[in-house]
Amino acid sequence: MENTTQIQEAIKVQGEVVRKLKSEKASKEQIDEEVAKLLQLKAQLGGDDGKNQFVLKTPKGTRDYNPRQMAIREKVFSTIINCFKRHGAETIDTPVFELKETLTGKYGEDSKLIYDLKDQGGELLSLRYDLTVPFARYLAMNKITNIKRYHIAKVYRRDNPAMTRGRYREFYQCDFDIAGQYDTMIPDAECLKIVHEILSALELGDFHIKVNDRRILDGMFAVCGVPDDKFRTICSTVDKLDKMLWEDVKKEMVVEKGLSEEAADQIGAYVSMQGGMDLAERLLQDPKMSQSKQACAGLSDIKLLFSYLQLFQVTDKVVFDLSLARGLDYYTGVIYEAVLTQAGVAPVSNDTQNGSEERVSVGSVAGGGRYDGLVGMFDPKGRKVPCVGVSIGIERIFSIMEQKAEASAEKVRTTEVQVMVVSAQKNLLEERLRLVTELWNAGVKAEMMYKKNPKLLSQLHHCEESGIPLVAILGEQELKDGVVKLRVVATREEVDVPRDDVISEIRRRTSQA
Amino acid sequence: MENTTQIQEAIKVQGEVVRKLKSEKASKEQIDEEVAKLLQLKAQLGGDDGKNQFVLKTPKGTRDYNPRQMAIREKVFSTIINCFKRHGAETIDTPVFELKETLTGKYGEDSKLIYDLKDQGGELLSLRYDLTVPFARYLAMNKITNIKRYHIAKVYRRDNPAMTRGRYREFYQCDFDIAGQYDTMIPDAECLKIVHEILSALELGDFHIKVNDRRILDGMFAVCGVPDDKFRTICSTVDKLDKMLWEDVKKEMVVEKGLSEEAADQIGAYVSMQGGMDLAERLLQDPKMSQSKQACAGLSDIKLLFSYLQLFQVTDKVVFDLSLARGLDYYTGVIYEAVLTQAGVAPVSNDTQNGSEERVSVGSVAGGGRYDGLVGMFDPKGRKVPCVGVSIGIERIFSIMEQKAEASAEKVRTTEVQVMVVSAQKNLLEERLRLVTELWNAGVKAEMMYKKNPKLLSQLHHCEESGIPLVAILGEQELKDGVVKLRVVATREEVDVPRDDVISEIRRRTSQA
Repeated sequence: MENTTQIQEAIKVQGEVVRKLKSEKASKEQIDEEVAKLLQLKAQLGGDDGKNQFVLKTPKGTRDYNPRQMAIREKVFSTIINCFKRHGAETIDTPVFELKETLTGKYGEDSKLIYDLKDQGGELLSLRYDLTVPFARYLAMNKITNIKRYHIAKVYRRDNPAMTRGRYREFYQCDFDIAGQYDTMIPDAECLKIVHEILSALELGDFHIKVNDRRILDGMFAVCGVPDDKFRTICSTVDKLDKMLWEDVKKEMVVEKGLSEEAADQIGAYVSMQGGMDLAERLLQDPKMSQSKQACAGLSDIKLLFSYLQLFQVTDKVVFDLSLARGLDYYTGVIYEAVLTQAGVAPVSNDTQNGSEERVSVGSVAGGGRYDGLVGMFDPKGRKVPCVGVSIGIERIFSIMEQKAEASAEKVRTTEVQVMVVSAQKNLLEERLRLVTELWNAGVKAEMMYKKNPKLLSQLHHCEESGIPLVAILGEQELKDGVVKLRVVATREEVDVPRDDVISEIRRRTSQA
Repeated sequence: MENTTQIQEAIKVQGEVVRKLKSEKASKEQIDEEVAKLLQLKAQLGGDDGKNQFVLKTPKGTRDYNPRQMAIREKVFSTIINCFKRHGAETIDTPVFELKETLTGKYGEDSKLIYDLKDQGGELLSLRYDLTVPFARYLAMNKITNIKRYHIAKVYRRDNPAMTRGRYREFYQCDFDIAGQYDTMIPDAECLKIVHEILSALELGDFHIKVNDRRILDGMFAVCGVPDDKFRTICSTVDKLDKMLWEDVKKEMVVEKGLSEEAADQIGAYVSMQGGMDLAERLLQDPKMSQSKQACAGLSDIKLLFSYLQLFQVTDKVVFDLSLARGLDYYTGVIYEAVLTQAGVAPVSNDTQNGSEERVSVGSVAGGGRYDGLVGMFDPKGRKVPCVGVSIGIERIFSIMEQKAEASAEKVRTTEVQVMVVSAQKNLLEERLRLVTELWNAGVKAEMMYKKNPKLLSQLHHCEESGIPLVAILGEQELKDGVVKLRVVATREEVDVPRDDVISEIRRRTSQA
C-alpha cells in the first residue's frame, strides 16, 4: 500500500540504473537482476505494462513435485524406510547447510560442485553435498562410537543437470550406515543385502551390484607402476569407465594425467576383470597383484564378504568388478554400486556420443562403501570410528516409477478421502457442515465443496475424478427421514442409512477396500 | 590451494580481530564466530597444530535431531499429516531455494532475513523463507486455479535464534492451503477447524486462536487517521503487541514512525478489544468504524466466519482480537494465530524484559490467513487465485513434546526391531546369519550383533536397552533339536519353537503388542 507517487519515483530511478548498466555493457545477469527489480516496481503499480514479467521457473536443475509425483515418491520412500527399519535402523536429521570448513577436503575433484551461501555476516556456510560427511560430523560432535542409522534428505550439487534421466542439482539421498568397531565384513555384507532387498521390492527390473575395494585399487595401481601421488587422480579416471570407453579413459590417464602408457595398459588388463569369489581367489595367486600387501588384504576381505553374501542369499546379483572405483576421497575399504541392467528402462546410452552399448550401464541407483577415516577427521583427538554405508539414489528410481505409472492404466490417487458430503438441493450448506464435522471428529477422511449451492452433478463428478469411493448425500427427504443416502461411486448403488449409523457404515465399507 | 604465506598473513589478521573483540568484551557469539574463522584458516595450513581444530558444531540457529528426537518429531508429523489427509489434502514439494526475485517484495520488513546463495555463476538464488510464496509461484507456473494441498518442509530465516524456546534459523513449517474461487469464509473456517483439531490431538494444553481481518485493520487505521502510506509500517508495529507492552508499541508508532499521538491512542482503544461474533456486531454499529467500507466488509465476514465455526464446533477456542496484525505483506483478508495459554508449558515470559505476565503469550504455534493477491503477482496476466491457509510452526511444539518425554518415565523407542537373533555359544555366526536372513525375507524386523562371537549377556542387554521385545536364541542344543528358543524380554519366559514355526510365532507375539 505504498504511495503511488513514491513508486513512480522509484521506477524512474531504477530505470536509470538499468539504462546505465546496459550502456556500460554490464553482465547479462546483473542487468537481468536490475530489470527484475524494475518490473517488480511496475507490478506494484498494478498497471498493465510492467505487471508480472517475472521469470516463472524453479532454479536450474531443480523441480517441483506435483501431487501425483508425490504419491509415487511416498510409495518409494515407504518401501525404502520399511527395509531400513526391518534392519533395525534408527533415523537422524542434520541441517541442510554446514559450516563450509566441515565440507572442505572431503570430496576430491568434486568440491567445486558445492553450493556456498552468500557471506551475509557471521559464519561461512555451504549446502550439504551428501549425507555422509554430515553424519561423520554428527558422530564426532556427539562422541558416538556405534549406531545404525538411516537418513533421508535432499543434497545439493552444482553439476550439469540431466533431468529427464533423473539427474538434478537438488536431489534426495536415502542413506543407511553402520558405525562401530565390528568383525570384518559383517556390516558390509548387510549393506549389500539391503540394496538387494530394496531394488527387488521396487520391481525396477534386473540389476546387479558391483563390488570392489579401495585397497585392491591402490594395490593394483602400485603394482602397475602408478606413482603414489597419482593414486587418487588415476582412481577418478578409472571411475569414468561406466560412462567412457577404455580408449578414452586410457587417453585421459596418459595425456592429461601423465601416466606411462605401459602402466595404463597394465591397469587396463585388470579393470576388465569381473567375477565372484573365484576371481578374488585367482588374483590372490596373481604373481603381480599378490606383491601388494594392501591388495591381498582387500582380496581376502572380498572372499569373506562373498561367504556372508551367500548366507544372505544375494550372490545372484553381486559381481566383483575391478573397474569400479567411485570418486569420493573418503572410502577406505569395500566399495559398491548397484546398476539397473534391464534394457528399455530409462536407457542412458546417450551418455556417450560414440557409446558401445555393452559398456554403458543403464544407470547407477545405489552406491556406497567403507570409510574408516572420515569420523577421525572431525574428532579433536583423531579417534576413528569405522563406518560402512549405502546411499540409494532415488531420483532415477522416481523417474522410472513415473514412467511406469504413466504407461499403466491404473490411476494414482493423490488423496485418501473416503467420503464426499454432498447436497441434493439448495440451501443445505449448514447440514453439510454439520455432517462433515461429525465425520472429521470421528476420524473419517471426508470433504465437501466450498460452495453454498453446488450442483449435485459437479459434486458427483469430483468424486469420480479423484477416486473417492463413497458419497454421503443429504437432501430434504433424507433430512426428514433422519437418514443419509450413501452412494457407492463405482457401482452407483445407493442405500439409505440411519443418521446414527452413518459413521460405522462408512468405516465398514472403506475398511474392506 | 592458497599460498601458505597468504594464509599465515590472514591468520595474523584474524588473530588480531579476535583479540580486539575479547578486549572489547564483545558477545560470546560474536567472538566464537571469529574464533571459528581463525581455526578454519589454521586448518588450511594442514600442519599438526591446525589439524582437527575444526569447530565441531552445526551452523548458528540450527540443530541435529538425534534418534530420540526424530521419534518424537515423526509422531508429531504423523498427527498433523493425518489431520491434513482427513480433510482431503494432496501434497506437493518445491525446491529449498528459489530464484531470488521470486521472494523479492513479498515479506515487507522481514526481507532482510532471507538467506542468499553465493553468486557462483548462473542464477541468483535464495533459500525459501516460507512455503506460501513458493506455493503461489507453483500455482501460477502450472496455471492451477484450485487445489487443497499440504506441504511439510524446512524454511530459513536469518533471525536471532532462541533455540531453547524453539526458535531456529532452519525450521519446519507444516502448511495447509486452499486455493480456488469459493464462497466466502467456507475454506477459511476449515483452516481454523484444522488448527483446532491438530492442537487438540497433540495434547499441548489449553490454547486459543485469535482471529482478525486485514480489512478491519486497514479500516481501523483509516478511521483513526493513519496516513495511507503508513498502513503497513503501523501494522508491523501493532504486530508486536504479543511481545511488547502497549506503551512501547505506542512509543514506536509516535516516535519512530511519526504517527500523531491522537491517532495512536485511538488505535490503542481498538486493539484492546476482544470478543466473538457479538464484538463484530458491535463494531458494525460503531460510529467511527462503520465509516470504513473496508472495515464493514471485514466485520461482516468475521460474523459469517463465526457462524461456520459454530457448526464446526470450535468456537470455544476462537477469539476475535483486534490486536492481531501479522507482519507479512501478502495477507488480504482474514488472519489468525494460535497460541498456547497453559502456564508452565514452555513459558516465554523472558521475551520482554519488563513483561506484564498477562500480555505475554506463551507462544504462537500456528498462523495464517487469506492472501488473494499473491498468485496474481506471479501470473503473466495477473490472474488472481484466491487462497487461504495455515502454517503450523512445529519447532515450538517439538520443544514442548521433548520436555514432556523427558519428564515422563516412559521410554521412547527409536527402532521397531521385533526380534534379536542371538547365539548362546561360540562359532554360530553362520547359523545366526541364516536365521536373520529368513526373518528379513519374511518381513520380520530383526537384528543381530556384528560380532563373530558376542557374549550372550551383552546381546540380551542390548535387547533390554533398546526395547526389543523378543530374542531368538540359537545354541548347539537348539540346532540339534531343530528349534529356536524364543525369549520374551519383559518376562524372561522362554519357549522352544520348531524352526519352521518361528516366523509365525514371532508374528503372533508381536502383533499383539
